[in-house]
Amino acid sequence: MERHATTGLLRRPDVTLPRRLALSASTIDGGITPRAEVTDWITRRSLEQRHEVARIPFVALRNWSFHPASGDLRHDSGHFFRVEGLEVHSDYGPVPHWSQPIINQPEIGILGILVKEIGGVLHCLMQAKSEPGNINGVQISPTVQATKSNYTRVHKGKPVPYLEYFRDAPSEDMLADVLQSEQGSWFYRKRNRNMIVEVTGDVEPREDFCWLTIGQLQQLLRVDNLVNMDARTVLSCMPAGVEGNPLDAETDLGAAIARSAETSTASLHTSTAVMSWITSRQAQHEVSTATIPLNEVKQWQRGEDEISHDLGLFFSIIAVEISTNSREVQTWTQPLVRPYGTGVVALLVKRVDGVLHALVNARVEPGYLDVVELAPTVQATPENYTSALSGDRPPFLDLVLASRPEQVLFDTVMSEEGGRFHHACSRYQIIEVGADFSDEGLADFRWLSLHQLTDLLRHSHYVNVQARSLIACLRGLR
Amino acid sequence: MERHATTGLLRRPDVTLPRRLALSASTIDGGITPRAEVTDWITRRSLEQRHEVARIPFVALRNWSFHPASGDLRHDSGHFFRVEGLEVHSDYGPVPHWSQPIINQPEIGILGILVKEIGGVLHCLMQAKSEPGNINGVQISPTVQATKSNYTRVHKGKPVPYLEYFRDAPSEDMLADVLQSEQGSWFYRKRNRNMIVEVTGDVEPREDFCWLTIGQLQQLLRVDNLVNMDARTVLSCMPAGVEGNPLDAETDLGAAIARSAETSTASLHTSTAVMSWITSRQAQHEVSTATIPLNEVKQWQRGEDEISHDLGLFFSIIAVEISTNSREVQTWTQPLVRPYGTGVVALLVKRVDGVLHALVNARVEPGYLDVVELAPTVQATPENYTSALSGDRPPFLDLVLASRPEQVLFDTVMSEEGGRFHHACSRYQIIEVGADFSDEGLADFRWLSLHQLTDLLRHSHYVNVQARSLIACLRGLR
Repeated sequence: MERHATTGLLRRPDVTLPRRLALSASTIDGGITPRAEVTDWITRRSLEQRHEVARIPFVALRNWSFHPASGDLRHDSGHFFRVEGLEVHSDYGPVPHWSQPIINQPEIGILGILVKEIGGVLHCLMQAKSEPGNINGVQISPTVQATKSNYTRVHKGKPVPYLEYFRDAPSEDMLADVLQSEQGSWFYRKRNRNMIVEVTGDVEPREDFCWLTIGQLQQLLRVDNLVNMDARTVLSCMPAGVEGNPLDAETDLGAAIARSAETSTASLHTSTAVMSWITSRQAQHEVSTATIPLNEVKQWQRGEDEISHDLGLFFSIIAVEISTNSREVQTWTQPLVRPYGTGVVALLVKRVDGVLHALVNARVEPGYLDVVELAPTVQATPENYTSALSGDRPPFLDLVLASRPEQVLFDTVMSEEGGRFHHACSRYQIIEVGADFSDEGLADFRWLSLHQLTDLLRHSHYVNVQARSLIACLRGLR
Repeated sequence: MERHATTGLLRRPDVTLPRRLALSASTIDGGITPRAEVTDWITRRSLEQRHEVARIPFVALRNWSFHPASGDLRHDSGHFFRVEGLEVHSDYGPVPHWSQPIINQPEIGILGILVKEIGGVLHCLMQAKSEPGNINGVQISPTVQATKSNYTRVHKGKPVPYLEYFRDAPSEDMLADVLQSEQGSWFYRKRNRNMIVEVTGDVEPREDFCWLTIGQLQQLLRVDNLVNMDARTVLSCMPAGVEGNPLDAETDLGAAIARSAETSTASLHTSTAVMSWITSRQAQHEVSTATIPLNEVKQWQRGEDEISHDLGLFFSIIAVEISTNSREVQTWTQPLVRPYGTGVVALLVKRVDGVLHALVNARVEPGYLDVVELAPTVQATPENYTSALSGDRPPFLDLVLASRPEQVLFDTVMSEEGGRFHHACSRYQIIEVGADFSDEGLADFRWLSLHQLTDLLRHSHYVNVQARSLIACLRGLR
């Protein structure tokens, strides 16, 4: 980027950045960390980060307790997060009014990936990190993944490595910097700051860290439960890097994705029409939410070691004790959200004249700040739809469950955030349908091209965390 | 816009639209409505729309009453709006904790301008509309200005003319369609849908309506209290129309504004840096707000005909009775917010290498959905800063108050929305400073070019209503 010496004006687009990103995305073997070493690194770190998680009764929680009046589950410091109640009135979906437990975590944390050109190729500094709710050992995480309570060291743990690169970064070094929401069914208005910062100086990788190219990360996204949610959401905010990736041209699919990512490509709907559709969905749905005392939530019961729904559906709140040798503190206890069943998260895609489009759903979740965000085509836990309670089956769920192998472009089980969720796994799929599959008459669905989604990802409140995961995965398909 | 016959793909940008908008902006005399007729039209409509507003005691309100328990002021139908209390905790500004009355109006209304090419020039269908809070008679308003209660006809009035063009518009006919906030000091999370729709068929202007070019509207914006707030905010959302306006080249200032509006122009900060700065401001400020019963608000008293602050500052809530022959219903009563003093709303601008930049302020207001929006450089009521209560004087207020005549590019008294606010006038100014005036060290201020502001205006939650007014005015300067 050049700043004019006397006027101070900056040329607007960094013309070389898309090419540098494309080079990194096409580098799978030529990076500083050989492919075999990545597997070794993960295995080694899993062994190293001894990590035991045991369910405990609520009374065994240390520094956490239920408030006597409200029944809210809170940390004594007032920091971290609280489990409260949420009351929802909605004109959307089969259930117009309900209450539920919800995590209230008003602090904005940092999810940051440090990027550096090494040997002429951009590399991302990734962390092998175990989390109490992980179904396996460590997963690949961003360079920094820290709540404000973490990095202001409320729990008096070790300092967060590399945090200074994000807290003090000049805005000219940012490749991305945007607040993004997390699960709106489980979190009340939670947002994290998704940051990608490029450094030019020396950065020494500490023992839990490793430099990986974007191409390597795209490969690793295809491995079950390996790249964690926080890494996926930050990667989804990466600017487009589409020009001249030689791998894209190798297959028809790669070319269709590359064309879809080009801002100059024609799409089924203009960007103004897409914005208008989103606005119409926000204006259409009236959803009012209010936090209420946890003990006023209806149809949920608090037992000795679990807060659960009368029908045994949705999720429960549990308590765990964690012992590890690699976290900021050595042992601790905390509540976790434990969802029932394995989620189905699927994006239908189609090629229109050689340009890939994805079918997104304007979805209402009670925890969103602005009512509606764009979700994958299907985002559901099939088990929740077997009972009489939940009414209508989500559109396209049965189509996804019945998809034929040759339609499935991507199919990986991935975990939601292990710091808040216990064994929360979903099957993430990208499924191709025929070009005649239209969105006409589907008020809550639209076919968007990849560059339209990338544009939206520069802003908050548009693309939900499940869709962000699938966009990060979609970019790596060929 | 062309849709490919077999594939259905649309070329993304409407290449002719910027030129058509520029032509309309440069047409001041050649439009369908001659200049002299516009003045006649306003005068005639002011006489026609007889309009009497009298202050009344709260007990004389019909269909409005204070809730016995909460003290909230509400309409019997539950519609329209409520005056409630708001409790604010903030880490920003001189006062960390306060409570205040606030208008809660969760419905999303429509502010829409219908646009049509007449004689080869785009014209806007504008309405001469009187509002109970207006300091004068009618003001120039959008084609449609309707709350949801209005257009679903809760008060059983006449139907809203031209509403069907906005409610049923295909998203491909939209020039703009975005939810924008309103005053965050007076409204709790209020947003209206700002729409600009182009029609091609015949549209007959009814007696209160008139076709005006963008150039004519830009001239009328320079007249005190003539173009109302709703018209200004919709106009600010107009896409850029910069290519080939011959008027721009006539003056240095016009050329500096035109260059600033071009997306390819260099700016002081890259767009990514601007986004990162906004994100940093959102993440920096912790503001928590909760609605509370109006009678729990501290330091405010309810009298017979006024709810006011103990120090006589800020604003009060009053009640009025309106008689008119031109509204949807003939007479009615309602509460209004009555601010004290005349606001100062000023944008500092400077030219950098011939490109105009505007100094915007990342401002916290308790009623914003997302904590921070970009405000003009100065937005203050000087009277509120004479007392000990309010602490620090806003940055640049004294600079604006002391500006020399040759610095002042724009200086007009304009009204806030007359449907909710009683005689709420502010002096809107655009003031030019030297190119050496830097934003370094000013964490909450940045110099942005006009095309950066126009980009942000395609989205919600970025630019506040006062800044939107000044952007609409700035575009018309030469």
